[in-house]
Amino acid sequence: MRSFFMTLAPERADTPALDVANPAVGLSCRHCGATYPLSPSHVCVECFAPLEISYDPDLLGRVTRESIERGPANLWRYVGLLPAGHDPARRVSLGAGWTPLRPAPRLAAELGMKTLYVKDDSANPTHSFKDRVVSVALSAARELGFTTVACASTGNLAQSVAAHAAGAGLRSVVLVPHDLEAGKTVSTGVYGGTLVAIQGNYDDVNRLCSELAGEYEWAFVNVNVRPFYAEGSKTLGYEVAEQLGWRLPEQVVVPIASGSLLTKVDKAFGELGKLGLVEPTPYRVFGAQAAGCNPVAAAFARGVDTVAPVRPSTIAKSLSIGNPADGPYALDVARRTGGAITDVSDDEILEGMRLLARTEGIFGETAGGVTVANLRRLLREGLLDPAAETVIYNTGDGLKTLDPLVETGGPTATIKPSLRAFEAAGLGDD
Amino acid sequence: MRSFFMTLAPERADTPALDVANPAVGLSCRHCGATYPLSPSHVCVECFAPLEISYDPDLLGRVTRESIERGPANLWRYVGLLPAGHDPARRVSLGAGWTPLRPAPRLAAELGMKTLYVKDDSANPTHSFKDRVVSVALSAARELGFTTVACASTGNLAQSVAAHAAGAGLRSVVLVPHDLEAGKTVSTGVYGGTLVAIQGNYDDVNRLCSELAGEYEWAFVNVNVRPFYAEGSKTLGYEVAEQLGWRLPEQVVVPIASGSLLTKVDKAFGELGKLGLVEPTPYRVFGAQAAGCNPVAAAFARGVDTVAPVRPSTIAKSLSIGNPADGPYALDVARRTGGAITDVSDDEILEGMRLLARTEGIFGETAGGVTVANLRRLLREGLLDPAAETVIYNTGDGLKTLDPLVETGGPTATIKPSLRAFEAAGLGDD
Repeated sequence: MRSFFMTLAPERADTPALDVANPAVGLSCRHCGATYPLSPSHVCVECFAPLEISYDPDLLGRVTRESIERGPANLWRYVGLLPAGHDPARRVSLGAGWTPLRPAPRLAAELGMKTLYVKDDSANPTHSFKDRVVSVALSAARELGFTTVACASTGNLAQSVAAHAAGAGLRSVVLVPHDLEAGKTVSTGVYGGTLVAIQGNYDDVNRLCSELAGEYEWAFVNVNVRPFYAEGSKTLGYEVAEQLGWRLPEQVVVPIASGSLLTKVDKAFGELGKLGLVEPTPYRVFGAQAAGCNPVAAAFARGVDTVAPVRPSTIAKSLSIGNPADGPYALDVARRTGGAITDVSDDEILEGMRLLARTEGIFGETAGGVTVANLRRLLREGLLDPAAETVIYNTGDGLKTLDPLVETGGPTATIKPSLRAFEAAGLGDD
Repeated sequence: MRSFFMTLAPERADTPALDVANPAVGLSCRHCGATYPLSPSHVCVECFAPLEISYDPDLLGRVTRESIERGPANLWRYVGLLPAGHDPARRVSLGAGWTPLRPAPRLAAELGMKTLYVKDDSANPTHSFKDRVVSVALSAARELGFTTVACASTGNLAQSVAAHAAGAGLRSVVLVPHDLEAGKTVSTGVYGGTLVAIQGNYDDVNRLCSELAGEYEWAFVNVNVRPFYAEGSKTLGYEVAEQLGWRLPEQVVVPIASGSLLTKVDKAFGELGKLGLVEPTPYRVFGAQAAGCNPVAAAFARGVDTVAPVRPSTIAKSLSIGNPADGPYALDVARRTGGAITDVSDDEILEGMRLLARTEGIFGETAGGVTVANLRRLLREGLLDPAAETVIYNTGDGLKTLDPLVETGGPTATIKPSLRAFEAAGLGDD
């Protein structure tokens, strides 16, 4: 009998630890290739470019389909390809990952497509893909000896850090702008960590965060442990391939904020091919942005390599990074694979949210609307093949971004409580 | 190789249909025992008592642990024990069920308990346990020939009906009070069904719903297809037993609104024992209410069998049923199993929500707070054994009930964006 309990609760004391070695051996500079030991650092001291994890190819090569399938029904089934979390007893996990890959036949029909799937990451514990990166980052933080974890955020990241720290008994310090909506403040504060409202805008919050990182021995999830954090996004690539029956999709559409997620999905597909876990079939990676924050789409359209910063102004707050760190890498992936990066207006984003909900019963956040609306645009412009198997990524939950819908939505009708009023409003059978 | 894809997307055309017969053979009156054919009806014409599904014991007996374990990772793994959904192609499903049974060691430690689990139904597609009952009700509705589904609701049920109908291509008509919060209106309306705001209170909405049920050939999920709907709750009992490794827990704490969920968890445990799928070990069922809507807890305290209606006034809106249809049956279960039914104040409910979030990283809705706070009370009063294995049910997501937290919560501190201000506020290391 297969024990499903084990797959649900891998952190229980009676769960046998899998014998998986940590394949991460150091950090390397993405620009100049300088190498460093595994440590809480994210910038090359030679050239100031970002660092990433480097792996021992022999250790990665030990991972098999079977070893993955024996693992838990969460992102830790891929621990042999990740840089932290190898000791289940010290792992920080609320069970993120292994979210549904939903066939989307009704959306496909409406868009004239053949085969379409939604990778629905709103099913994560705090309902966004940030749970993946936070789970890996906090596991690394604990292994590196930190007892306090911190971040600056205006939304998904704040809630995810506070929740994972609470579940693991770590201290958390989350910094947010003081004018954040009350709902977002309480959905982070409820976990009982330290929640600091900063009298300033998000840039001020970020600047203070960098100062604090120099002052305190804390793990800042997207600063000093960022190389570990970013690797968590690879699991969104691994899972799609495994859920398709160990093969790569032909096309994927991924929303772009920092650009990290898109590049990590590509990295994951590449790794699986190199390791022989899937056939290295060709795939095209498309990037989705909002017109109100489109630095990468603009560079793609202009055919340039440099990403000019913009000042974000869009309802897609979770994608509002005006100066995306991984923008150039995302451009490179889209061009190399034959994809594209486009953008859509706020009205199109709202229509994208409604289209996904109306056809598939999936209520994605504004970022999901960005992805669906860009899918539609890519089809309209003939950039994406409607006959090729396509996966789109929904990275968060509509319950977290209700405001723009409140301003534009409402009931079908408002009536008096009588059968007569109901019929008079034309609400009965056609 | 085990195909996980199949378990995630059981509705795809290429998924082999399991050969499972529908064990439901009719409806029977819970009071007088009168029997009826399977049909969209919920009240006995002899004595006006509620009807429930009756099953063929031989067909139920065909279900084995192995047949269940071969099924999908959602509630439909138990289709052999349910009254609808036996043809996967016609099944209405967004993948509800098979939610995590989370070990809660930090909450257990804080409460002085030995072994505690949270059955976390906020992990369902629209983040409440209503997805289970709606999935079964809409599958039954489709099998009975309905193309329009309807309900009256102020929250979780509305969103779940609208989402499942959208995903299945059914028409939905959801009736809500006109003064519902805008956020709840749009999180239902986004799915594109008919959403009718009624100028009246919830009683007016319900009354109109009953009138409409007599007028239109629609499936009203908690009226004419209620017997099917209610059976969906049994899966919350089955899953806990299977996730514990096919055995029953010693104690469960279940929130009470209509009382249906509590009675169905008991029914599920009883069925599993009778069918030989678990040892029929003794268990105690505890019920949790809010003091502001405590008709069943009050009857339990008074030692009477009749449940006197109350006018609800509590922050736990999803439990605000003043005249619970299954109240007497819930009383019976608690008394028969040696459990108890208690209530807690709104302040205790908020503290319960914060306690669960702070210790386990789980943000439950107010109903979850009711359950945790009652657990604490039951321990304090010596009614629940801290050394016996206990499962508590979290039936919804905190993101849906932010308002009471907004009124009482806030950041730890609000400061200027400087290191000096941060340190002056005592936010650094201790």
